[in-house]
Amino acid sequence: MTPPLRVALLGCGTVGAAVARLMAQRAELLAQRAGRPLQLTGIAVRNVSQPRDLPAEQAGLLTEAADALVDGADVVVELMGGIEPARSLLLRAMRQGVDVISANKQLIARHGEELHAVAAEHGVGLDYEAAVVAAVPVLRVVRESLAGDEITSISGIVNGSTNYVLDLVARTGATFAEALAKADALGYLESDPSEDLDGIDAAAKIVILARTAWGVSLSFDDVQCTGINGLTEADFEQARGTGQVIKLIASAWTSGPARQPRVELAVRPVLLAQDHPFAQIREGGNAVVIEAASAGRVRLHGAGAGGEATASAVLGDLIAVARRRSRGA
Amino acid sequence: MTPPLRVALLGCGTVGAAVARLMAQRAELLAQRAGRPLQLTGIAVRNVSQPRDLPAEQAGLLTEAADALVDGADVVVELMGGIEPARSLLLRAMRQGVDVISANKQLIARHGEELHAVAAEHGVGLDYEAAVVAAVPVLRVVRESLAGDEITSISGIVNGSTNYVLDLVARTGATFAEALAKADALGYLESDPSEDLDGIDAAAKIVILARTAWGVSLSFDDVQCTGINGLTEADFEQARGTGQVIKLIASAWTSGPARQPRVELAVRPVLLAQDHPFAQIREGGNAVVIEAASAGRVRLHGAGAGGEATASAVLGDLIAVARRRSRGA
Repeated sequence: MTPPLRVALLGCGTVGAAVARLMAQRAELLAQRAGRPLQLTGIAVRNVSQPRDLPAEQAGLLTEAADALVDGADVVVELMGGIEPARSLLLRAMRQGVDVISANKQLIARHGEELHAVAAEHGVGLDYEAAVVAAVPVLRVVRESLAGDEITSISGIVNGSTNYVLDLVARTGATFAEALAKADALGYLESDPSEDLDGIDAAAKIVILARTAWGVSLSFDDVQCTGINGLTEADFEQARGTGQVIKLIASAWTSGPARQPRVELAVRPVLLAQDHPFAQIREGGNAVVIEAASAGRVRLHGAGAGGEATASAVLGDLIAVARRRSRGA
Repeated sequence: MTPPLRVALLGCGTVGAAVARLMAQRAELLAQRAGRPLQLTGIAVRNVSQPRDLPAEQAGLLTEAADALVDGADVVVELMGGIEPARSLLLRAMRQGVDVISANKQLIARHGEELHAVAAEHGVGLDYEAAVVAAVPVLRVVRESLAGDEITSISGIVNGSTNYVLDLVARTGATFAEALAKADALGYLESDPSEDLDGIDAAAKIVILARTAWGVSLSFDDVQCTGINGLTEADFEQARGTGQVIKLIASAWTSGPARQPRVELAVRPVLLAQDHPFAQIREGGNAVVIEAASAGRVRLHGAGAGGEATASAVLGDLIAVARRRSRGA
């Protein structure tokens, strides 16, 4: 029997706790799929005395010694969020030949090129399906399924919080202010909701998608970004009056030759006819449409957030790492 | 520079010709994505004197000596259709350590288990994304993106010809007979349309999907299969009268523990409300919904047939083979 794959978890919030719990619940299934057992060696947190949503037998895995945990791992799964210490820990891991997985969209959007350079230099994997619309498998489709095609555009509803607000206004006739208050009460908005409302979250995702699709260097500065904060009741009345709905759409499109494309990126509220596929995305749902020269239009739709859905994408990356390592060995 | 990957093509129909043409048109892009050039070493056909839709510089690649072509390849791409000689050629290739790719759903549905056993024995790849709904990347999503999840059901519209006919009846008020005649005139139906109309094509796809999702042994005999041939005008009138539409739905669902699930398979016409996501699939479109314990509902939609769309999926598999071989080397 192949020895277990030693998995170190960084972070134990909603997603981290879900990953740990599912690794215990599905231990046998995951071992079967991976070709070897997955052994959770520890969960690094800032404060081990804070209560966590973990099964009793995993409580002993919590540690504040993130460096030591990284040093003893085969794979590091980073679910802390924020830039530091996440970035330094991933760099430390990769420089020791450890594969890394992350669900941290801001880190990947801002430092993805640096991280990929280090991954390539040390011949390790750097995967982050969960960083972009969680359980909607769009990165793998762009990177692998469409690897022989020429993608011409990617667009979508990639932020569930703003879609929840816009959907409430469109379908219930609530005012924008009322919808924001309700989304907040239901926990759809962060305590500082500006990352969602200003389009920063969507911008991070479209940067990562475009970089994956076209292999070009891109940053936040390349995104023409307008959130939904500037929308007024008059905008919503106009939409209703013309039988349309407002959605926050992130898009990336290309011009020029496929080998050296020029890429344009935008996040902005868009007026859509009721029967447009994006117009029908309800509540916190996410959807992405990829246009490719040969495949035509490929549409993906699913849960773009949530602990379990994000954990599903993380576990998919984890199985992929295990399979790659088995083949390479 | 890594030496070229020698690719042998078996078959030069609509899909084969599209793959050959795109390999020439996108040579530079594919080499970049694969990490090495892809060299088309030959295209095996039954009769080299028959005219083909190939660029002039590829006409010299046609050969009737399929065995010799297979023997000199790194990867064999089988696009001939039918069971023999496709099956024997793929077995011959794999026994020599050659990776294989196929778009042949009947072959994979009927002999997939034998082929996988030989692939495992010889440590070679056996990929067939294009065999199931062409450019809709459902096999990769089931096998990789959801590898850490527990899939509970898969259902979809997986046959474009029958959907075209049903959509015409539902949206234009044409009779079933008129819609069949129109689909036939537009080339949507095969000269022997029973594979589509009796649900055999859809049954092959759901067998392959279920086997991929749950790793269990399944055959056509496990599918409760009813095509659209038995539908009458009274069925369509009833659907219209109740504001519903008829769609041919292939489905697979499971009960019992995730490690040893019992799998049920069906293909049958189903009455759906107008606002059901499947009800809105127009013309030759295909759609698949996967339900998983953690990811929730993941929906995929796109072109389920056509030479270019199918070729896109074949090229995706080809790039994946090239990348795997580079890592293994």
